[in-house]
Amino acid sequence: MKEETKLLKNKHLLSMSDLDRDEIELILDTASSLKEINFRPIKKVPTLQGKTQINLFFEASTRTRTSFEIAGKRLGADTINFTASTSSLVKGETLIDTARNIEAMLPDVLVIRHSASGAPHLLSRYIQCPIINAGDGLHEHPSQALLDMFTVRDAKKQIGGLRIAIVGDIAHSRVARSNIIGFKAMGAHVIVAGPPTLMPPGIDRLGCDIAHSLKEAIEGTDVVMMLRIQLERFETKPLPSLREYSETWGLNPRNVELTKPDAIVMHPGPINRGVEISPEVADGPRSVILDQVQNGVAVRMALLYLLTRRSS
Amino acid sequence: MKEETKLLKNKHLLSMSDLDRDEIELILDTASSLKEINFRPIKKVPTLQGKTQINLFFEASTRTRTSFEIAGKRLGADTINFTASTSSLVKGETLIDTARNIEAMLPDVLVIRHSASGAPHLLSRYIQCPIINAGDGLHEHPSQALLDMFTVRDAKKQIGGLRIAIVGDIAHSRVARSNIIGFKAMGAHVIVAGPPTLMPPGIDRLGCDIAHSLKEAIEGTDVVMMLRIQLERFETKPLPSLREYSETWGLNPRNVELTKPDAIVMHPGPINRGVEISPEVADGPRSVILDQVQNGVAVRMALLYLLTRRSS
Amino acid sequence: MKEETKLLKNKHLLSMSDLDRDEIELILDTASSLKEINFRPIKKVPTLQGKTQINLFFEASTRTRTSFEIAGKRLGADTINFTASTSSLVKGETLIDTARNIEAMLPDVLVIRHSASGAPHLLSRYIQCPIINAGDGLHEHPSQALLDMFTVRDAKKQIGGLRIAIVGDIAHSRVARSNIIGFKAMGAHVIVAGPPTLMPPGIDRLGCDIAHSLKEAIEGTDVVMMLRIQLERFETKPLPSLREYSETWGLNPRNVELTKPDAIVMHPGPINRGVEISPEVADGPRSVILDQVQNGVAVRMALLYLLTRRSS
Repeated sequence: MKEETKLLKNKHLLSMSDLDRDEIELILDTASSLKEINFRPIKKVPTLQGKTQINLFFEASTRTRTSFEIAGKRLGADTINFTASTSSLVKGETLIDTARNIEAMLPDVLVIRHSASGAPHLLSRYIQCPIINAGDGLHEHPSQALLDMFTVRDAKKQIGGLRIAIVGDIAHSRVARSNIIGFKAMGAHVIVAGPPTLMPPGIDRLGCDIAHSLKEAIEGTDVVMMLRIQLERFETKPLPSLREYSETWGLNPRNVELTKPDAIVMHPGPINRGVEISPEVADGPRSVILDQVQNGVAVRMALLYLLTRRSS
Repeated sequence: MKEETKLLKNKHLLSMSDLDRDEIELILDTASSLKEINFRPIKKVPTLQGKTQINLFFEASTRTRTSFEIAGKRLGADTINFTASTSSLVKGETLIDTARNIEAMLPDVLVIRHSASGAPHLLSRYIQCPIINAGDGLHEHPSQALLDMFTVRDAKKQIGGLRIAIVGDIAHSRVARSNIIGFKAMGAHVIVAGPPTLMPPGIDRLGCDIAHSLKEAIEGTDVVMMLRIQLERFETKPLPSLREYSETWGLNPRNVELTKPDAIVMHPGPINRGVEISPEVADGPRSVILDQVQNGVAVRMALLYLLTRRSS
Repeated sequence: MKEETKLLKNKHLLSMSDLDRDEIELILDTASSLKEINFRPIKKVPTLQGKTQINLFFEASTRTRTSFEIAGKRLGADTINFTASTSSLVKGETLIDTARNIEAMLPDVLVIRHSASGAPHLLSRYIQCPIINAGDGLHEHPSQALLDMFTVRDAKKQIGGLRIAIVGDIAHSRVARSNIIGFKAMGAHVIVAGPPTLMPPGIDRLGCDIAHSLKEAIEGTDVVMMLRIQLERFETKPLPSLREYSETWGLNPRNVELTKPDAIVMHPGPINRGVEISPEVADGPRSVILDQVQNGVAVRMALLYLLTRRSS
């Protein structure tokens, strides 16, 4: 680590708005240093040896929990998974009591996912141990935004000045919200677009522009980030049909040509092939979707490292 | 470890009645020695390096499984979680066959929770590997009693001669049963109290006294241990209403003054705030509820250490 | 390890038919070398230190997942469990996308169980990381066959020339299929038998003989492998009754005498006591059922070792 003296100002990572530009760069630089560990024959260092990382997941997740678990293990931490389905939450204990009990076991960092927006913020008022928000309801998912920013910086060498389009269900996307805040802090130009029923009122107060069609959103952009459509919403439905959604808002080999020639295509996953993104684009040369997943491990290593270093 | 030559007489820890006074003191002293590991920057020692600890949980649990897992990992053991929902028990295998199969994989210690009273005892007749009973039905929960005794000794310097009140659903509490046996072995005076429908006939044969009101139970006591009311029981109901229960048997800022001025308040968790204990008392200066959780890790480290040392 | 220069030819272990006789012997010899680690006071070596093993289980399992997890941990690997119930498969992601995402996190080996026959083969077309098939639908379960072969070789010193009877629900048994292929490759004579409704057409194309009664199958054999009857099948039922099944096809203290005096009795577990095998035989002197489980850890250590060595 070259940044011996730099630290994050906050104890927790709850929201991208906790981080200023220098801190975001510190995290991305730290992730760059740590990334190569993942490519070694022996992908493990003793940096977090003897640290206890608890993944408190109150909502199902594949990638995020596994990514944090791998990140912790490769840094040498002891990782423990606590999932709601096997928890005493079933017995009616409050979230705060559960978290305080877990904290009494003296973990060094808590990684929390919860279906309620604001749950990690609530807990941070009661918990001394560093908390990483791994996704809270419709609110934020800062480690996802940071891995997206890492991926963009890796592909484009810088973030400032880039045009970045985020397309889809903006209203229900914690990924969109965290990314808008983060990319704006780094000086990018962010454009959001999606069906009117899936655009939250006042989203432009986060500093992004609103486009009214896919074409308007992605024309000349450096980055297109497609959001996942949650298929289950189509049953009660703000939207007429999946096919219509795909035709109006889906990224495909034709409309992707509206972006810059060297534009990259992103998606936080899991993708719905043929809905918000066509298989040709998802698997095509512009796609950095699997790089996002790979970078996620490095970015989470950086977060675990920086937040536990701060506390010890 | 200063107690180089001391050992537990039994291979397993199934019941508090397996332990005599010297053995309880050995466990509490060992936990005292190990506790500071949890406060180190690097909270890990190689004591159980290369030992395999399997947590066989046939019943949901938060705290207990996590506490045992952290305890094992901080001593350097490999910990493996086996939970019933993902098990071949679904396929109709008997409990004994499951346990013998797990034993064939050569673990060094099995931590077992089961909804059937006596399940760990049954298994101990077939299994050579040390078994720790982590809660069996309405029967016993010895590691909970030991962490409670550790917490009392820590706060009061000794256990012998103390007055200890245990209040609530005595009939359905494995925690109460294990604590009565343990505290009696250490020379404390134990008083139990609760609604007549929740008092098991013959409980006084364990050597405790029975009080008939909360006031009678807690007046002048050194320790008050409130038990969890299982809310689901109120549906089929031996009890008229939660509010009535709370008024008659709940601990609150007024009646807690009946205890000694330096009395401590305990609860095995998870607590029902406003039912068996008011938030003011649970979070107040007398409460050692979170100390219990913290001490639980140290006590379980001691049990894992003593039982695996014995077998190797 | 004495076999410094030997390697498996294939990157993955998907089917027993991937392995020739030399490779099977390499695996069994490697397992023999590694087995003693499980009996040491410190049962852990640093061989796979810094390797990431992900157990991708899309179908419930006790033994197999635990066996692979213990095998990995004893070789020093970091093991991560991914189970379908807590996965984004719930959200409709395809199996291939899930696996590619997991692979992007740079694991060194994936252990996959899936209810669909051929799922690991499908994934192997998209995944570079070594895959071990830990059971796919009705198709194959090669690590089970290898531990069975290890157990037979351990008891009988050699496999070539032995008579091996496999009895029961051949049609629905991936264990039977993998064992037939493996034992044939090693030069054994394999006889299969079971109710006509549970015999798959064309099974003799794998090189085994078909017997039409239990007596015909097991008379004079060196090894009898009884298969588990899946009780749930009796509800829709190709079979009249459990009792009739047991009388016609169950192994008991009388008919087991038809085998050679030193014949061994095997079962992949979990057993249905009193259905396909009587308790007297399952727990009797000929039974090597628990040896199979014990050997399973050593054989899986060998597979993890050989497949990750190849890839690094």
